[in-house]
Amino acid sequence: MEFSLGQVAAMLGGKVEGDETLMVNRLDKIQEGKEGGISFLANEKYSPHLYDTQATAVIINENFELTKEHSTNLIRVKDAYAAFTQLLEAYDSFRKSEVVGLEEPSFMHESSSIGEGFYRGAFSYIGKNCTIGNNVKIHPQAYVGDNVSIGDNCIIYAGARIMSDSILGNRCHIHSGAVLGSDGFGFAPLPDGTYKDIPQIGNVILEDNVSIGANTTVDCATMGSTIIRAGAKIDNLVQIAHNVEIGENTVVASQAGISGSTKIGKNCVIAGKAGIVGHLNIADRTTIGANTGISKSIVKPDQTILGYMGMEIKSFLKSYALFKKLDTIDSRIKELEKKS
Amino acid sequence: MEFSLGQVAAMLGGKVEGDETLMVNRLDKIQEGKEGGISFLANEKYSPHLYDTQATAVIINENFELTKEHSTNLIRVKDAYAAFTQLLEAYDSFRKSEVVGLEEPSFMHESSSIGEGFYRGAFSYIGKNCTIGNNVKIHPQAYVGDNVSIGDNCIIYAGARIMSDSILGNRCHIHSGAVLGSDGFGFAPLPDGTYKDIPQIGNVILEDNVSIGANTTVDCATMGSTIIRAGAKIDNLVQIAHNVEIGENTVVASQAGISGSTKIGKNCVIAGKAGIVGHLNIADRTTIGANTGISKSIVKPDQTILGYMGMEIKSFLKSYALFKKLDTIDSRIKELEKKS
Amino acid sequence: MEFSLGQVAAMLGGKVEGDETLMVNRLDKIQEGKEGGISFLANEKYSPHLYDTQATAVIINENFELTKEHSTNLIRVKDAYAAFTQLLEAYDSFRKSEVVGLEEPSFMHESSSIGEGFYRGAFSYIGKNCTIGNNVKIHPQAYVGDNVSIGDNCIIYAGARIMSDSILGNRCHIHSGAVLGSDGFGFAPLPDGTYKDIPQIGNVILEDNVSIGANTTVDCATMGSTIIRAGAKIDNLVQIAHNVEIGENTVVASQAGISGSTKIGKNCVIAGKAGIVGHLNIADRTTIGANTGISKSIVKPDQTILGYMGMEIKSFLKSYALFKKLDTIDSRIKELEKKS
Repeated sequence: MEFSLGQVAAMLGGKVEGDETLMVNRLDKIQEGKEGGISFLANEKYSPHLYDTQATAVIINENFELTKEHSTNLIRVKDAYAAFTQLLEAYDSFRKSEVVGLEEPSFMHESSSIGEGFYRGAFSYIGKNCTIGNNVKIHPQAYVGDNVSIGDNCIIYAGARIMSDSILGNRCHIHSGAVLGSDGFGFAPLPDGTYKDIPQIGNVILEDNVSIGANTTVDCATMGSTIIRAGAKIDNLVQIAHNVEIGENTVVASQAGISGSTKIGKNCVIAGKAGIVGHLNIADRTTIGANTGISKSIVKPDQTILGYMGMEIKSFLKSYALFKKLDTIDSRIKELEKKS
Repeated sequence: MEFSLGQVAAMLGGKVEGDETLMVNRLDKIQEGKEGGISFLANEKYSPHLYDTQATAVIINENFELTKEHSTNLIRVKDAYAAFTQLLEAYDSFRKSEVVGLEEPSFMHESSSIGEGFYRGAFSYIGKNCTIGNNVKIHPQAYVGDNVSIGDNCIIYAGARIMSDSILGNRCHIHSGAVLGSDGFGFAPLPDGTYKDIPQIGNVILEDNVSIGANTTVDCATMGSTIIRAGAKIDNLVQIAHNVEIGENTVVASQAGISGSTKIGKNCVIAGKAGIVGHLNIADRTTIGANTGISKSIVKPDQTILGYMGMEIKSFLKSYALFKKLDTIDSRIKELEKKS
Repeated sequence: MEFSLGQVAAMLGGKVEGDETLMVNRLDKIQEGKEGGISFLANEKYSPHLYDTQATAVIINENFELTKEHSTNLIRVKDAYAAFTQLLEAYDSFRKSEVVGLEEPSFMHESSSIGEGFYRGAFSYIGKNCTIGNNVKIHPQAYVGDNVSIGDNCIIYAGARIMSDSILGNRCHIHSGAVLGSDGFGFAPLPDGTYKDIPQIGNVILEDNVSIGANTTVDCATMGSTIIRAGAKIDNLVQIAHNVEIGENTVVASQAGISGSTKIGKNCVIAGKAGIVGHLNIADRTTIGANTGISKSIVKPDQTILGYMGMEIKSFLKSYALFKKLDTIDSRIKELEKKS
């Protein structure tokens, strides 16, 4: 993908100051710009870089006044930040959609179907009775089990694994090494101290626009479904146990873990390494701080919770500030004891 | 797999009330039952669903008295819960065993052997000098290195990886993306601040009936073996470092981590996100709470430990209750200071 | 790989006491020695094992005086520990280098190149425009995306994944299931509560001698690069977010997580499960204890930090010791209150 500065300016509704015929094929940070790259300048803080960047072109606001010599070419637009974002999205969308076709060897059972505009990378696997929509990209070494349904415009990255009976909506992104639908962790203790497997025969359902991070695990339900609602975004190395439900537009950051049968509301933010025990309900728009442990349901929406055993954030911070000074507290008591 | 209600009733020693010839091919929760599904009712709490479920049939206790009209078919048995469990296990075991044969392309070195009833999925890899027992299922894209020994009735799920020299007993389940036998994390500091690799030439041993969760990592020993004893169950995203030993029937929940050379006793429960430092001994039947940090050996068996730096649970909860009220403690001291 | 005791002694500059023609093909711990194995004795503590080991030979110090009958053969050297380490490293290096050649089926795009002494395992994938150096081992089912550059003597283990545009130096080891260059976790909230993807178009750079553990994830930068400097060692299941920079010779233990845009200095030690929030700077030679949370930059080098919200270690331990006795503190205040 290579464009002339003239083409880029036309796309952004801007004007070139410099050589319109020069070609660019890459987006660069202005301070790291190199030949063939195009950058932008929106934040005053970075303006010194305009005069020494090696980028072929820089997008700047139409009213920006240069104060020194410069060697780069300029594309002047109304709003440099918005224009660059537009370029970024076009670039990203082009990169993702240009991956098409069939690489061999790959495996798809004859009972399964995939729509138009697909990519099936080498060593990818699609089991029996799968129904896969249009513009779905199954990258190399990805795995799709039996009876899986996948909507349109999904991307299954290299080595992601979608176990049997999973159902994915449209525009879901499953990153490399993620596992959807592995067995829930269910074992019944026997009198002799050993454990018996509890069969895990449910599935995983992802609604539209769900993103699952690299090496994240989402277990299938014991029976029924583990459900991730529309627009939820799950980061890397997150654990989502059997029969959990994650609400719409809830964000779960890296290394957080949610135990079995817990239901998280809508538009929550679960920060990194937070842990939530099983069979709880978490109200809508709850924010759970990094490394927080939650062992009780959160009934009131819109709270921020923090701490080893989660507390309302202000109370926690008050207590933690005093925890830091416990030696002073101890001395003060000693002082009082002496006097008493 | 489809059965008539008559066949199911015969299998469970029960009696059909309704149409014996109807077919079912799925197990449903009663509140989510659909045509073709069979459910059960054991808990009174769910009895209202009996009258509106769409499931083709519901298994109920023989003495259950219906109080309203119903549209589903019934299978009456002595103990509905036990009967359903029996059905569940039969279904699960059938699903797991019906996967057989060789999908191409797959790779097995000529020096290796696999027993009867095997499944070798497409893109699965088996290295040199491996000995693999009967009824072993190597799912697509799974990896078995060189000199690996695997017992009977094991399941290696899609993309699980068993590195060279590992030894697995019978009936082990290795879930998707798990890695057994990756290098232990061992580096010797040199005077210039850099590190030199310490070769990790040991292996991993799993005894019988061990389950390893999705994307869990078990490192090989530096020398000798990292050992997971019979019946231990390890959840997803767990880290088990080099030369660790996990005792019989010990359960380790998701995202827990056990550092090098630590030995965990029998029938312990390690909850989610717990962390145990290296070179410790943990007594039999210890319970370690979620997110607990353990930095000293636990000598006395049968304790429950909790907290950032693990304490006996009652002491911890007492301290944490007071931590929550540290501002009151501070005020009380202030009050005393005023008076003194 | 099999050597006679005579050959081993020659290599180590030692002398055989026993049968020079016996063959060994394995390194054993002295207490677990078996026929065909060679062990060493350096620590007095283990000397009783010398008299009952089944190992074919034991390396001992030249001045070691035996006090009992023994059935094993001896190789006497100046420094038994150093000699054994030498043997260990030779063995390890031989094992790693003997893996060569092309296993089929594997995939490499015609526009990519790989140097001499390579291994390309079955089902490994190499995308477009990759430049790969000499003696690089791409194990089975490993993935290398487009435009990736890999130096000499790297090992990409089974199922490791290196996404497009990544750059690796020399002698990097990427363990099984690790993912380099997955999308950073970036989403812009929209007024209706949903999120829009922020394109992640940067890459990952690993300098020389970097080791990445099994199932660890390193996200690509939003723009620019996520960078891991020379000699850094990253353990299993670690999360390194977009635009992070890890300094030279810094060690990050298992399950630690580093949030976006944070810069870690040189020769730091980040212990297991530690978490560092985004956009911070951590000074050189900082030690961060296990399970520690860091939410502020650390400016002064050479500190050790510990605790749920990281504190200088001595202060933390003082506070935690008093936290454990909070019930006593409470009683002491009550006592004072009674008196006042």
